[in-house]
Amino acid sequence: MINTVSIQGYRASFHDIAANKFYGTNIKLEFCNSFKDAFESIKSGTSEASLCAIENSLFGSISETYDLLANYDYKITGEVYLRIVQCLIVIPGAKLEDIKEIYSHPVALAQCDQYLDTKLPKANRLEYYDTAASVEMIKNKADKTKAAIASREAANLYGMEVLAKEIETNRQNYTRFVTIDPGNKLVPDSNKTSLILKTSNQPGALYKALGAFEKQSINLTKLQSRPIIGKAWHYMFYIDIEVGSNSEKFQKPFKN
Amino acid sequence: MINTVSIQGYRASFHDIAANKFYGTNIKLEFCNSFKDAFESIKSGTSEASLCAIENSLFGSISETYDLLANYDYKITGEVYLRIVQCLIVIPGAKLEDIKEIYSHPVALAQCDQYLDTKLPKANRLEYYDTAASVEMIKNKADKTKAAIASREAANLYGMEVLAKEIETNRQNYTRFVTIDPGNKLVPDSNKTSLILKTSNQPGALYKALGAFEKQSINLTKLQSRPIIGKAWHYMFYIDIEVGSNSEKFQKPFKN
Repeated sequence: MINTVSIQGYRASFHDIAANKFYGTNIKLEFCNSFKDAFESIKSGTSEASLCAIENSLFGSISETYDLLANYDYKITGEVYLRIVQCLIVIPGAKLEDIKEIYSHPVALAQCDQYLDTKLPKANRLEYYDTAASVEMIKNKADKTKAAIASREAANLYGMEVLAKEIETNRQNYTRFVTIDPGNKLVPDSNKTSLILKTSNQPGALYKALGAFEKQSINLTKLQSRPIIGKAWHYMFYIDIEVGSNSEKFQKPFKN
Repeated sequence: MINTVSIQGYRASFHDIAANKFYGTNIKLEFCNSFKDAFESIKSGTSEASLCAIENSLFGSISETYDLLANYDYKITGEVYLRIVQCLIVIPGAKLEDIKEIYSHPVALAQCDQYLDTKLPKANRLEYYDTAASVEMIKNKADKTKAAIASREAANLYGMEVLAKEIETNRQNYTRFVTIDPGNKLVPDSNKTSLILKTSNQPGALYKALGAFEKQSINLTKLQSRPIIGKAWHYMFYIDIEVGSNSEKFQKPFKN
């Protein structure tokens, strides 16, 4: 039973929403400034587990999470998919024509550029360190000329008004989060496993490694390369396979 | 014969150094604010070619360049490898104990954090949009308490002093740049080819595609996955193979 979970971000951030979706709302969240701090929070014993974004359907893999997984001896225990829906948030009563400044995380601002170009071409876009924190900031300013871009949950939390929802340019905007745990037990009845492969630097090494999975008809859902630090132009491969790590099928490729 | 080349960055940036290494010093450089602007510069006819960083040995692939390569119908015509050496740069006569503020691009600041932690633990680190531009800025301020982190070339260009060189934490810091050209001719006598594969979403599809190269003993030097926009959790694979696109060996895998 997990009670404390570290996340990068603050209350009503997408990490917060994803954590509640996976663990329920009774857990205690430890809010961290970075993914690294979230991993360190497990190490120091402040948290029992962490939930971290690992991939977005528009932007691709989040390298930092991949690199941390290689550097800490933690296991992935589950995953959550969340559709990222951005809202234009103002203080109650403010109207579109009042807005002169829009605050949000740079990624959220970029995700909504088409809406902003069309509906608010004259408003200044200002970068803020967190989507939900930008809502809190404009609430504290109580200024009708300031808007924020964040989740509906952030608007609710701070008693603010959603002036427009689904303002992101591409609706196929999903983030995949993984839950990370220091436990050294394999997850029982899991149906997916993430592995890190280091192949020898020989022609066909990756092909041969993948062949071991192919032979068992194990499907790959993801393959991500990352550099091996200190060995320029050598790579590790992170692969996700559709088979649980406790299953007999999982063991077979390693016996050949 | 290429006369005008677009790069992201300014005079004495690492892109500038790489462009001079590849094209010589007689070319005219078109300085751009982003990789996208560098690609657009070819489209508008302002530049005949572009040189863009595609990968760093510590940080991995530069996703933006990969995505642009998929979206513009340009060809990679060559590559340059550059060791990234960072220097602590001050106005002539300034000493280490004078420094209170250090300016540079956030990546350069991060690359030197060990040096800064040890030698300048009390100095503030301030982010600037470009390494070389931070040198120009501190030159204009003529203030002994300000330092910049950039290349030796940037120090020379602005007549500034290198107080310490090779201050990057990891010396295995290399960036690979590619040269990009709208020409539709294949490069004669090339010995490397970059391809983008879209595989069907079936078990073993990537494995089978790689098998076609394996069969011809064609070595893969790089494999990078990127999301297909609008099709969540489907991927394109960018691969580099050690065979020229004009060679007979290159044609064979596509005939099977």
